[in-house]
Amino acid sequence: MKTATIVGSGLVGSLWAVYLAKEGYEVKVYEKRPDLRKAKISAGKSINLATSYRGWKALDAIGIGDEIRKIAIPMYGRTMHDTDGNISYQPYGINKQAIYSVSRGEINCKLMDIAERSGKVSIAFNEDCVNADLEKGICWFKNSETGKITEVTSDLVFATDGAFSAVRYNAMQKLDRFSYSQNYIEDGYREILLPANADGSPKMEVNTLHIWPRGRFMLIALPNFDGSFTCTLFMPFDGDKNCFNNLTTKEKVSEFFKTTFPDFYNMMPNVAEEWGNHPLSSLAIVRCYPWYHGKTYLMGDAAHATVPFFGQGMNCGFEDCTVMWELMKKHGDNWKKIGEEYQIARKPNGDAVQDLSLQNYLVMRNKVADPEYLLLQKIERRMAELYPDKYFPMYSMVSFSNIEYKTALEKGNIQENTIKAMIDENNINHATSDQDIDVFIHKHLEKVFSMA
Amino acid sequence: MKTATIVGSGLVGSLWAVYLAKEGYEVKVYEKRPDLRKAKISAGKSINLATSYRGWKALDAIGIGDEIRKIAIPMYGRTMHDTDGNISYQPYGINKQAIYSVSRGEINCKLMDIAERSGKVSIAFNEDCVNADLEKGICWFKNSETGKITEVTSDLVFATDGAFSAVRYNAMQKLDRFSYSQNYIEDGYREILLPANADGSPKMEVNTLHIWPRGRFMLIALPNFDGSFTCTLFMPFDGDKNCFNNLTTKEKVSEFFKTTFPDFYNMMPNVAEEWGNHPLSSLAIVRCYPWYHGKTYLMGDAAHATVPFFGQGMNCGFEDCTVMWELMKKHGDNWKKIGEEYQIARKPNGDAVQDLSLQNYLVMRNKVADPEYLLLQKIERRMAELYPDKYFPMYSMVSFSNIEYKTALEKGNIQENTIKAMIDENNINHATSDQDIDVFIHKHLEKVFSMA
Repeated sequence: MKTATIVGSGLVGSLWAVYLAKEGYEVKVYEKRPDLRKAKISAGKSINLATSYRGWKALDAIGIGDEIRKIAIPMYGRTMHDTDGNISYQPYGINKQAIYSVSRGEINCKLMDIAERSGKVSIAFNEDCVNADLEKGICWFKNSETGKITEVTSDLVFATDGAFSAVRYNAMQKLDRFSYSQNYIEDGYREILLPANADGSPKMEVNTLHIWPRGRFMLIALPNFDGSFTCTLFMPFDGDKNCFNNLTTKEKVSEFFKTTFPDFYNMMPNVAEEWGNHPLSSLAIVRCYPWYHGKTYLMGDAAHATVPFFGQGMNCGFEDCTVMWELMKKHGDNWKKIGEEYQIARKPNGDAVQDLSLQNYLVMRNKVADPEYLLLQKIERRMAELYPDKYFPMYSMVSFSNIEYKTALEKGNIQENTIKAMIDENNINHATSDQDIDVFIHKHLEKVFSMA
Repeated sequence: MKTATIVGSGLVGSLWAVYLAKEGYEVKVYEKRPDLRKAKISAGKSINLATSYRGWKALDAIGIGDEIRKIAIPMYGRTMHDTDGNISYQPYGINKQAIYSVSRGEINCKLMDIAERSGKVSIAFNEDCVNADLEKGICWFKNSETGKITEVTSDLVFATDGAFSAVRYNAMQKLDRFSYSQNYIEDGYREILLPANADGSPKMEVNTLHIWPRGRFMLIALPNFDGSFTCTLFMPFDGDKNCFNNLTTKEKVSEFFKTTFPDFYNMMPNVAEEWGNHPLSSLAIVRCYPWYHGKTYLMGDAAHATVPFFGQGMNCGFEDCTVMWELMKKHGDNWKKIGEEYQIARKPNGDAVQDLSLQNYLVMRNKVADPEYLLLQKIERRMAELYPDKYFPMYSMVSFSNIEYKTALEKGNIQENTIKAMIDENNINHATSDQDIDVFIHKHLEKVFSMA
C-alpha cells in the first residue's frame, strides 16, 4: 500500500486527500489546529471565498461538486455603491455565469468529512510540523496538547500548510538555491459582519458581490446563507488619511463610515461597536521555487500564496490538485517526473495568479467606478455575447475557464490595450448607441478575436 | 553600563564591536563557528575581498585603517586576458586610486584582535543563535560542543550574522509584515588557488585584478601576499555548454581551461587536479525590511546580502557601521530614533548596492571586452582627469567615494547613457585622436558635469 502524508487539513490539503484516496493511497493528514468541526474556531483569516470554474472543475472531477454547490450562493455580477448611496451593476459574464460565495469553514468541514468517508484518510489534529526530511519523506509533528513528537515516514509528503507553510520554513527554505520571498502589500483588511434583518431577510441584494470602490481603498460584501453579509474593508495601514492607523476611536470609525459609505452606515449604524470583533490583518504575496524536492511537494498557498482580490487563492490551489492528478495519470508512479512537470507547468501560473490578483485590486477599488473602464467592459461583454466561442475577456478567462493564468494575464492585457486604443481612434464613448458599438466591434475588433 | 549583544563575529560584527566599545558599551559577541584564529577553518565562502573607500573610511574613523593597510595589496586596475592570451589594462580611477585585495580570514582575525584589545569586548565561539526576543533584547544560544543553552539579555542586539542570519530567520521573519526575499542567481562559483612560482614570485602582475571575460561567464584572480592568486570561476550551474554541470570529469575541466583560458592553463596545467579543493557554491541576493524591531538591529549581510561582483559586500557592511555611529552621535541613546533613521537611510542603499552588483557582473564578464564600452570608459576617465572635482564615473562613485549607492546607481546610469548618445551623435570612435576627444568633452559633455 502506497502511503502519503499531507501537512495541513485546509481546503487544498483536504481536497488532495480525497484525490489520493481515490488513487489508492493510504493518507494521513496532520493539522496544526484543533478540529474545525468540533471546536468553535475560525477556519482561517478570511470567512468567505468565491468558488469559480477551476474550483468546480477540481471538485466535479471526483464527483463532489454537487455536495459543495448546496452550500454555495451564486453571484452573477458586481454591485457598486457610490458615496451618494447610488448603486450600479456589472454582470461578471454572459449566460448566467457566476462566481459562488462559500463559507471557508463550511467548505473545509465538508471536504474533511468527504475525505474521512473514503475510509483511506485519517486526520490528526493539534499536530504542528516542526521539521521535515524532504528527501526521505519524514515529517516530525509536535502535539500542541501533549507535547509529544511523532515521526512519520511515507512514500510522499504534500505540504498544503498555507502561506506560512511549516514544511517550507523548516526545511525547503534551508535548501541551497531555494528562492523565496514574502512581500506584504501596504494595505491590510478587517472583516465586519452585516447581520440580516430581524426577520432573517438580507439587507441587500443577495446574488451579487457588493463593492464600495473608493479609489485607494474599498469595502466589499459577500452574501451568507443566513441573510448576513461578510464585509471586508481593504485599506492602507498607514498614511495621511483613510488608513487603519487613523481609525483609533469608535467615534472616528463611526464618522468614517458615515461619510465614506453612507448607505452601508444606514444599514449598520453600530458598525463602530462591531469594529473590534475581527482582527486587523495583513496581506502578503509569497513566491518560491522549486516546488518539490525529494519526496516532498508544495501545493496551494504553500507554493503560491496570493492576495485575495481575484478570488482565486482556493481555485488556484484546487487546480494544483487537477494538474497533479493529470500528471499521476500520465506518469504513474514516476513521482520525480510528476514533480518536475508539475513545478515547470504550475510555477508560471502561480506567479501569474499573483500578478492578476494585484492588478484586480486596482480594478475593484478604482476602475469599476471609472467611466472609461466601464465603457471598455461594456464593449468586451458585448463581444463575448456576439462571439461566445471566440472572445473571452480577462475576467472570464480567469473565472470561467481553465485557460492557464499566465495566458489569461498576457492575453487579457493585450486585448484590453488593443480595444482601448481602438476606442480612442474611433471616438467611441458613452453616447455611442448599442447598434454603433456592434458596428464598431464588427469593423475594428476582428484582430482581437484572432488572439483568442 | 550599557550592554550590547552582537550575533556573529564576522567582518561587520567584529568592526561594530570596536565601535560600540569606543562608545562605552560592554559588548558580548556570540559566534556560531570556532575561533578562526585557532582553528584551521576557512573564514567563509570567499577567500579574498576588495577594500575600497567606504571600507577604509569606517576603519580610519576609529584609527585602525593603517593596521589593516599592512595586510592589503592595492589593485590599480583590471587586466583582461583574451582567448589568445593577449592582455589589456584599464585603470580603475585616476591619481593611483585603487581597491585593495585582502584575505577575508586575515582581516577578520585582525578585527577580532582589535575588538578584544579594547577590554570591553568578549567573544564566545561555537554559540549558535537558536532564538531571539527582538523586543526584550534576549537571544538564546546553543553551544555546539556542550549543547548548553545560554540566555543573554542586553540593552541592544545587533545581528551581524550574515546572509542567512539566524536572528532574522528565527525571529524577524516571523514578524507580521516583515518582507523578505532570498533570490539565487543562475550562476555559481568555484575557487582555484593559483600558486606562486617555486621561488615565491607571482606568476602574473600583482597590483591588478585579473579578468578573463567570456561573455556569459568569467574567471577572475586577486593577488595574495605569498605570491599566489585566489582565482574564481563564475558560471551558470546548468545550460547547454560552459556550465558547471557539464564539467563532470577531470578531462573535461582540463579541456575547458585549455581552450577557454589558455594563458591561465599554461600557468596551471594541473588545474583539474585542484578543481575539487574548493566547493561549488551558489550566489544569492537577500532583501528584507524592516531592519530593526524593538531592541534588535540588522547590519551587513544580514540586512542586504549581495552578489560579489562590485566588491562592495564588506564595504557596504562597514558603511552601515559608519552610518549607525553617526546616528548615535546625533541621537545619543534614543535607539528608536536611531533605528528608524538607520533603516530609512540605508535600505535604499542596500537595494542599490545589490542592483549595482548585478549590473557589474555584466560589466566584468562581458563589457570590459566590448570596444564600445572601452571607448565610453576611456572618455569617462579622461573627463575625470580633466575635471577631478566635477566628474565621477559610476565605478568611482561606488569605489572611491561615499556618495550614496542609490545616487551612484541612478546618476551613473544617466551619465553613461548621456555620454553614449553623444558618442553616437558626434561619430566619436576608436580612431578619434586624444586631442579630438578633449575637444568633444569640452564641447558636448558640459551637461554631464552639471549632473555631478
